[in-house]
Amino acid sequence: MTKDSAHKKVKVHFEPDNTELVVEAGANLLEAAIDAGVHITASCGGAGTCGTCKVIIKSGEVESTRTEKVSDEEWEQDVRQACQSKVLTDLTVHVPVESRLEKAVVTRESKGTGETVATGWSFKPLLSKYFVELPPPTPQDNASDLSRLLRGLKQRYKLSNMTVDFDVVRKLPQTLRDSDWKVTATTLVTAVKPRAADRRRPRMINIEPGDTREKHYSLAFDIGTTTVCGQLLDLNQGRVVAEGIDYNAQISYGQDVISRIAYCQRGGCPKLQQAVVGTINGIFRQLLNQSRVDRQDIGHLAVAGNTTMIQILLGLDPKYIRLAPYTPAATFIPPVKASSLGIKVGDHVYLFTFPLVASYVGGDINAGIVGAGVHQRKTLTYYIDIGTNGEIVIGNSDWLVAAACSAGPAFEGGGIKHGMVATNGAIEDFEIDPSTLEPTIGTIGGEKPKGICGSGLINILAGLFEAGVVAQNGKFHTDLPTNRVREGKDGHEYVLAWASETQTGKDIVITESDIDNLIRAKAAMYAGCQTLVNSVGMTCRADLEQVIIAGAFGSHLNIEKGITIGLFPDIPRDRFTFIGNGSLLGARLTSFSTDLLDDARMVARMTTNFELSENTDFMKNYVAALFLPHTNADEFPSVKEKLQKNKSKQRTTV
Amino acid sequence: MTKDSAHKKVKVHFEPDNTELVVEAGANLLEAAIDAGVHITASCGGAGTCGTCKVIIKSGEVESTRTEKVSDEEWEQDVRQACQSKVLTDLTVHVPVESRLEKAVVTRESKGTGETVATGWSFKPLLSKYFVELPPPTPQDNASDLSRLLRGLKQRYKLSNMTVDFDVVRKLPQTLRDSDWKVTATTLVTAVKPRAADRRRPRMINIEPGDTREKHYSLAFDIGTTTVCGQLLDLNQGRVVAEGIDYNAQISYGQDVISRIAYCQRGGCPKLQQAVVGTINGIFRQLLNQSRVDRQDIGHLAVAGNTTMIQILLGLDPKYIRLAPYTPAATFIPPVKASSLGIKVGDHVYLFTFPLVASYVGGDINAGIVGAGVHQRKTLTYYIDIGTNGEIVIGNSDWLVAAACSAGPAFEGGGIKHGMVATNGAIEDFEIDPSTLEPTIGTIGGEKPKGICGSGLINILAGLFEAGVVAQNGKFHTDLPTNRVREGKDGHEYVLAWASETQTGKDIVITESDIDNLIRAKAAMYAGCQTLVNSVGMTCRADLEQVIIAGAFGSHLNIEKGITIGLFPDIPRDRFTFIGNGSLLGARLTSFSTDLLDDARMVARMTTNFELSENTDFMKNYVAALFLPHTNADEFPSVKEKLQKNKSKQRTTV
Repeated sequence: MTKDSAHKKVKVHFEPDNTELVVEAGANLLEAAIDAGVHITASCGGAGTCGTCKVIIKSGEVESTRTEKVSDEEWEQDVRQACQSKVLTDLTVHVPVESRLEKAVVTRESKGTGETVATGWSFKPLLSKYFVELPPPTPQDNASDLSRLLRGLKQRYKLSNMTVDFDVVRKLPQTLRDSDWKVTATTLVTAVKPRAADRRRPRMINIEPGDTREKHYSLAFDIGTTTVCGQLLDLNQGRVVAEGIDYNAQISYGQDVISRIAYCQRGGCPKLQQAVVGTINGIFRQLLNQSRVDRQDIGHLAVAGNTTMIQILLGLDPKYIRLAPYTPAATFIPPVKASSLGIKVGDHVYLFTFPLVASYVGGDINAGIVGAGVHQRKTLTYYIDIGTNGEIVIGNSDWLVAAACSAGPAFEGGGIKHGMVATNGAIEDFEIDPSTLEPTIGTIGGEKPKGICGSGLINILAGLFEAGVVAQNGKFHTDLPTNRVREGKDGHEYVLAWASETQTGKDIVITESDIDNLIRAKAAMYAGCQTLVNSVGMTCRADLEQVIIAGAFGSHLNIEKGITIGLFPDIPRDRFTFIGNGSLLGARLTSFSTDLLDDARMVARMTTNFELSENTDFMKNYVAALFLPHTNADEFPSVKEKLQKNKSKQRTTV
Repeated sequence: MTKDSAHKKVKVHFEPDNTELVVEAGANLLEAAIDAGVHITASCGGAGTCGTCKVIIKSGEVESTRTEKVSDEEWEQDVRQACQSKVLTDLTVHVPVESRLEKAVVTRESKGTGETVATGWSFKPLLSKYFVELPPPTPQDNASDLSRLLRGLKQRYKLSNMTVDFDVVRKLPQTLRDSDWKVTATTLVTAVKPRAADRRRPRMINIEPGDTREKHYSLAFDIGTTTVCGQLLDLNQGRVVAEGIDYNAQISYGQDVISRIAYCQRGGCPKLQQAVVGTINGIFRQLLNQSRVDRQDIGHLAVAGNTTMIQILLGLDPKYIRLAPYTPAATFIPPVKASSLGIKVGDHVYLFTFPLVASYVGGDINAGIVGAGVHQRKTLTYYIDIGTNGEIVIGNSDWLVAAACSAGPAFEGGGIKHGMVATNGAIEDFEIDPSTLEPTIGTIGGEKPKGICGSGLINILAGLFEAGVVAQNGKFHTDLPTNRVREGKDGHEYVLAWASETQTGKDIVITESDIDNLIRAKAAMYAGCQTLVNSVGMTCRADLEQVIIAGAFGSHLNIEKGITIGLFPDIPRDRFTFIGNGSLLGARLTSFSTDLLDDARMVARMTTNFELSENTDFMKNYVAALFLPHTNADEFPSVKEKLQKNKSKQRTTV
């Protein structure tokens, strides 16, 4: 570069934003992008060490320092690190999706310190779209349509060794000719890398006329025993476009997995399958309406769920799951066409299910572990997925032990008189005035209350317990100066909202029977944790370095209150993180990265299943936990102290 | 071995024949087998050099000399060469199917010197069955059903890296428990070996209760434009159990591929697909009846056919095949579930189609080349597949050039007044008394005649021509002293059999229009050969070292008579071999060996397509060949000589 050129003005054009900026020749390309308002990720702040700011120089010249972050292949394809490049001439620069990705969006559920989401993976969705313009056939080059397409994909994208679905061949001749030989091929990675040396063999699952790369979506679902959650993902931007939640329609056939399996044993599997497929289709409809995405533009479906839910969804009768020694049909389930199950997506869409560990430790917990990155850290973590089929994991990057503790549906508002899923109108926040015993409630969306969601229940029980409205055995004190505690149709209850204040036009209450359900649910979870931790020769209070709480309920779960009722161990509060629906997080992140697909398989292999159902220690621990917060108050020193303080305060007030 | 033991008597038990024999300790195992009447192949006669007499020592001890023919892996699995083993103790010996195989059965069509069938392949069917007895699950070992099965297959058969069809998972739990954990898994190799270093990934396509290895069958079909042939194969014994033939029901929609494609262009593809599927199902029903094999025991279907036939069968509209530049949908078609096309096999059965070369040089010719082993030899070979969509290949192991010459259906009895497929009752042999002009006819199966098959037509035309009943231009001499030549409804005709002698109760005749069709058909084939050979700078008479004739017609094709009418080049007769239906041979042999599956892909890649339809040399050659035997008599010196002899004989007789 001569001195003259240093003062030359050059134009830099950024794709796909179509933003242009004039800079002096010699300017740093990353700085130019920042000035132009083009978002390029540069984790290391421009030092050249992270490799996240890679761009492709489509035309023009730059002077780049090459670091080890740019491979030979990338270098040949004119990939450069923006921070290491000086602009020499007019440029057209393409900013690839990986460099545009807003990590904050991907990890939006994380409310903790950031160490609760998988890291180190690159953005390589399982589903990819490739646009090619093919030369039309001539007498000299009349290769078959498929050969022409494969040749084009190889030349432009270096793709090879692909398997092709027959349906692609069926559509190919017409699609190529209707679109003037410009088509978009969709490929899917369906299997993990077989061995280190092997390359993946992507499968071509669809072919569309024209350039449809902009329409590149998939679905991630968590199929819970009580609740089903779904997200519609934009695979170009790595973000959630829409999300929806609903009760699993199987609820009408039984509240927990055991009653569902029992129903299957009576020949009901097809009915249950139909029910959950109906729920999925309903949520899918919501997602399409919200996002205005076209149904046909969905190319993949990743599903996490417990073993029973997955087997029923796939039409695999789960009856043997309930019979000792509790064997599932398969831990790794081959990909299956989603439309063959009745899910209303295009015929090219495959359903991916997470590998599972055992009959009662399913792909949902695997997805959660992968999503939260528990398997990546040395930190000894307690991962707890609060739901009807509550599952817990203890471990770190070296070992993982998992167990299921059937908690019942209370945490998801199931089996609760005014329970509901965590959607608008659900009571989630609850405060109680210790002197008047009048409540202050908050609902999701700020609407008038309709019912109570799982996290609301925990907050309510903790509040009532701390205020002395509910006793340690879960019964109401009935001699209190408030008309909110009353004898209802189903025994004693506390009125959370009067009919005039609610959407339903009826009083919203929490009953003694609701509280009883909740106490049994929390006892199962706590006893499970205790038993698992003790089984590896540790104790909750001394050894757990991190607690990650996942669950399909509302996101306002209050850790303090969870400890108050004895759901979580009484350890320093800064070790807790709530990540929302962990299974859905895992399903989403895995949709974004084949790295995590490999991790999912590894986690399923390395996790040891621990059977609680016939464990006598677990039964003992469970009975001891049927108390607020616990029969052994020394397990919950901070709660004990708080209660004593409250008592003396109340005594003072009275 | 001590001297004492030499006189000890020991028992040798051979599986699966369950034959037992008492021998002296020290006896040679191969000789013991021969004495016991157990068939073990030993090509080298017991010298230890061929490796064909391998057996597995299931129990007891032998003393074996190890040669390079036994791999490390085999040695560990107690595989020994029978000829190299001395019996030391009581033995149980398993004779695997490869060693039991009767090669003669596999190569039954070969009537030549043996150099016309692919060699050097080992018996490794694409479809395999594996029986395993699994340990039932216990609380200590409650792996999933699929993991248990895969573990069992790995332990017993060293199978790994398998893909599993979802339908297998669906059937698995019930099948395992119904059969007391004894099941047979069926695997299929669907793809050729990707690269030399890679191992194949077989696909598990079925699971059955109990040991079903004895029931191990597949289908091989040749889908011709006019005729469809099918065989039911026993994959344990490598032999044909039943075979069937019928006209392709598409005939009602047009006689050649062009008219079929034209029908598709008018929206008729689904109808044509239905028609050929109906034909396949009909033949399949015949095969099941003949063999008494159960429909569900068929595990695979290999199909050879020309590009148009295959595309229609698969529901791939062939309209672009007819439009320049004549591109097929795909040269390598992914495996497709046969039942999805309406073929009445089990849902686990995949249909394999041979890779094709071009729009008019299809997988049928590829199958033929592979089956005949043309690609394996240095010999310059002319491979001719005589059929409606006649295809020819010139080449050897170094290069292959192919072309299609649409001959019309005459060779298969199509478009012929009394034409029929080559089944019982078809006139195949024909001799004519030169003085009385009375015929002697022979039919397939020795029944009363019903009609004339393709090979019969050639024999008849040659006979009538040599006897002077038909002139060089294909017209009847009408002044002959016989009532067999007469004026019929459709012009002149010769009566082959009177009504009283036939099954139909009507005279069976050959008409001038039949002869005209046949002459046009033979002219197309001969002109094609001439054009192709000339295009590589050679001539038929000087350079062709071998001629392999394939065709779906009867097996009594007379080479001499084929030369007499000018269908085949006039070269030494010992260079000709007739191999029957070469496409079906290739489909069958490929079903028997994954080696040939790899060859099929290689042959498709190495074959160059030569377009005759717009070639002016071909048109010139074709017109010159519309004569018996040819306009240029010097092309057929031996025929010229024979005719002159006949003439002088007739003159002498008269």
